[in-house]
Amino acid sequence: MAKRQFYIVSYDISDEKRLREIHKFMKDFGEWKQKSVFECWLTPEAYENMKAGLKKLFKPREDRVRIYRLCKTCRERAFSYGWGELPEEFEEDVIL
Amino acid sequence: MAKRQFYIVSYDISDEKRLREIHKFMKDFGEWKQKSVFECWLTPEAYENMKAGLKKLFKPREDRVRIYRLCKTCRERAFSYGWGELPEEFEEDVIL
Repeated sequence: MAKRQFYIVSYDISDEKRLREIHKFMKDFGEWKQKSVFECWLTPEAYENMKAGLKKLFKPREDRVRIYRLCKTCRERAFSYGWGELPEEFEEDVIL
Repeated sequence: MAKRQFYIVSYDISDEKRLREIHKFMKDFGEWKQKSVFECWLTPEAYENMKAGLKKLFKPREDRVRIYRLCKTCRERAFSYGWGELPEEFEEDVIL
């Protein structure tokens, strides 16, 4: 299976119904971490499917999404304060 | 002057008053990008001051913050869709 990479997906959705739809959609791709922030371990194919799906659900003039990819070094430097843990390393087939 | 690094700061604050305080506090450190997401170019000293300040404003049992640092490669792979632009490179003294 193709290697996975770690992504943070954060979005700003101006419409409640669309927000729920996107939240539901994103659950298939990663872990919900904060209001509009998901952490995802994705193969290149899953990454493309996620982006394509988000584009369909989105209204670019009203909403926005930011997707950041984090390499291992950047993951290791992540800091979390308060409840909830840091991004866990994905056991198998991960791109360093 | 010490080199700057790029950070994404995202937080979940359960109390409206505290949320406004933290939003105001964070404006001194970076650019507000989405509801609870700031992008910051910080020297090591500014990074420590920001973390210390957030810890003072925070209730760890109710709130949480995640701070991700992005290297140049990860920044270049960031994706933005909808309104708003991608993280701009900081002209001077940046850690690659």
